[in-house]
Amino acid sequence: MNYYILRCITCRKEFNPRPGLYYCEECGKIMGTLEVVYDYESIKNNAALKEKKFNKKASMFQFDFLLPTKPKLKLDDYVGGTPMYKFDLLGVKDVLIKYDGSNPSSSYKDRASAIAINKAIDEGNDILFCASTGNAASSLAMLNAHTDMKTYIFVPAAIPDGKRTQLEISGAEVMAVEGTYDEVYDLSLELGLKKGWYCRHAAINPYLLEGKKTGAFEIIIQNDFQVPDYVLIGVGDGTVVSSLYKGFWEFKEIGLTDKVPKIIGVQAEGIPAIKKVFDKGKPYKPISIEGSTVADSISVGKPRDVIKACTYVEASGGYFISLTDDEIIDAIKELGKITGIFAEPAGAVPYGGLKKLIYEEKISKSDTVCLVITGNGLKDVNAVKDSISKTTLTAEEVIKRFEE
Amino acid sequence: MNYYILRCITCRKEFNPRPGLYYCEECGKIMGTLEVVYDYESIKNNAALKEKKFNKKASMFQFDFLLPTKPKLKLDDYVGGTPMYKFDLLGVKDVLIKYDGSNPSSSYKDRASAIAINKAIDEGNDILFCASTGNAASSLAMLNAHTDMKTYIFVPAAIPDGKRTQLEISGAEVMAVEGTYDEVYDLSLELGLKKGWYCRHAAINPYLLEGKKTGAFEIIIQNDFQVPDYVLIGVGDGTVVSSLYKGFWEFKEIGLTDKVPKIIGVQAEGIPAIKKVFDKGKPYKPISIEGSTVADSISVGKPRDVIKACTYVEASGGYFISLTDDEIIDAIKELGKITGIFAEPAGAVPYGGLKKLIYEEKISKSDTVCLVITGNGLKDVNAVKDSISKTTLTAEEVIKRFEE
Repeated sequence: MNYYILRCITCRKEFNPRPGLYYCEECGKIMGTLEVVYDYESIKNNAALKEKKFNKKASMFQFDFLLPTKPKLKLDDYVGGTPMYKFDLLGVKDVLIKYDGSNPSSSYKDRASAIAINKAIDEGNDILFCASTGNAASSLAMLNAHTDMKTYIFVPAAIPDGKRTQLEISGAEVMAVEGTYDEVYDLSLELGLKKGWYCRHAAINPYLLEGKKTGAFEIIIQNDFQVPDYVLIGVGDGTVVSSLYKGFWEFKEIGLTDKVPKIIGVQAEGIPAIKKVFDKGKPYKPISIEGSTVADSISVGKPRDVIKACTYVEASGGYFISLTDDEIIDAIKELGKITGIFAEPAGAVPYGGLKKLIYEEKISKSDTVCLVITGNGLKDVNAVKDSISKTTLTAEEVIKRFEE
Repeated sequence: MNYYILRCITCRKEFNPRPGLYYCEECGKIMGTLEVVYDYESIKNNAALKEKKFNKKASMFQFDFLLPTKPKLKLDDYVGGTPMYKFDLLGVKDVLIKYDGSNPSSSYKDRASAIAINKAIDEGNDILFCASTGNAASSLAMLNAHTDMKTYIFVPAAIPDGKRTQLEISGAEVMAVEGTYDEVYDLSLELGLKKGWYCRHAAINPYLLEGKKTGAFEIIIQNDFQVPDYVLIGVGDGTVVSSLYKGFWEFKEIGLTDKVPKIIGVQAEGIPAIKKVFDKGKPYKPISIEGSTVADSISVGKPRDVIKACTYVEASGGYFISLTDDEIIDAIKELGKITGIFAEPAGAVPYGGLKKLIYEEKISKSDTVCLVITGNGLKDVNAVKDSISKTTLTAEEVIKRFEE
């Protein structure tokens, strides 16, 4: 285990880690989210690290020198180490596509769930809980299925079929609740903290971001330590976008790279909560808006990691943009057609974002860009069902089609 | 490129490879399927191979010394190298679970499609075609999306939503035809061979089995060259089961292992075509039966690789069994609950098969067993939708659930 402390994102007060400590009570659940702070100086001076051979396909636990727990689960060895492809896209040469749909539960969220479950084991807790738009829940439920620990899942009743099915198949106890993600979140958090269950809410539990940041580490090592100019990623609660910044920053801090990319958070125009906060400027304040989007994974009106997200994205020199649902659906289809990669709606928004920023001449064709695709399109095939062909042909029609 | 010849599975006549040669014309499309035969003696004596360090996560092209083409596609580096997990299942210690749902298109079929597309490039063909129950088609369409080559896909109109969506997203030209897989297959084969398109029918084109056999190579290297006693796999057309035998046999032939496992082909009771042929005994004869099953990927009444499948499974000392649809659905759910792995119906049948064979005392608890899970459950969430909970709760009901 590495030495680390926890630090409040707002008042900067430092805490020693202890079970049940998830946020700075003085600043509250949203303003007082905590950062995990390692002893970067000693990591930087560690001779073994300088010699370390990274493996482009190893699990995220190869980065154990910057993680708060060790792998103990059956599926840990295949969390992370996900594909990165290089494509010439939209005139930009060498667009890196980091595809996290190949994780065990088919989304980026496995990186956080693996940390949560291993941490719960460390702390001797035997119940985990999670509220989720779908991916975090199915990820926790599936990675935890083989352990003796219980999983309580709280989701809005309207989550996509694929995600609900994953949950039920895993044997978790699923509370599919009438209401929005934000309502379900509050309900579960109140209940879970009162009961003392281990919290797999990425915006509350500071350790989960530690798992998510490994995506940034992998982008670096898979691109042979060339840090891209821009990284684009979908944003809901704000944890994944925050985690990318922290990952890039940490590798720079320990001397493995010399820059942090501009991080562009892509939201849905129907519910662009964090973008609103960011655009309004500092001091960043929590927000609660209503709205909706086809991209269920980023349909969040009351983002919990909004302070970190705004602070980190600003530090990177990046910003937030938003896409309409039509642009999101088009992004899924174009990305699939050009690359063969099928992304769930929230996973395709980085492609739509790139298209928009090229059009607006904010990203130039000589920039190097990385798109982070957070989930497999099979998670939510209904999202595109109205915009794809369902034509059926007879044998005769097929023969006629190819007659010359 | 390695030196190899083609040999008829029935009359043993040998052929030099040439574009358009897919089967022995004297014996016909089914009796005359061809085997790719390498110069095993010279491979065995190759000093470099003896020193070769295999990588448990490398793509299937690390086995290029036994493949008929080289990787040239953007997605090739992530085809194969899929997870293998070890679980204590049903009282059997160390059940190996080879999970191919993490391939680029989320199924085993990518191993064959990667070969097909690379071979088509070698031969200068610029159109590929495929008839499929779904996975082979979506695999071909997705891996080929980024190339300049055209993809014509022929599928029964009734394929699961997930697979149809993958096809449409990839930009392939999809002919969704009224009729069974067997009818669509015949239609496409007649058309495709007449037109000279490159054939991605695994039971016709002998090279495709070469891709599929890499699953066996990976089971061997991921289990540190300990060959299991039994390998169980779902069977439709018969190519995957044949490929496993060939893979295990080839590693033995070149001196890397000393045995071939007993291969158990698991079919659906609703349409157990190959099992019928096998149980009737030699000489194996093609068959055409009607029937259906929830496991769409193995819903094949007129299996094309039946001769190879029966011949190889017999040579391994294995046999075929079948499961009812209820047993298949139960297998999906139990596997998910115990391991967290979500398999499509045809991918879960090895688990159901193991359960059956333990019950019948044909597999003992001290045997080492490998289950090959060929596809991600997200491919076909509807298959289990009637047997999982869809309960919705109100917030009040949730609070009550946890009151003491």
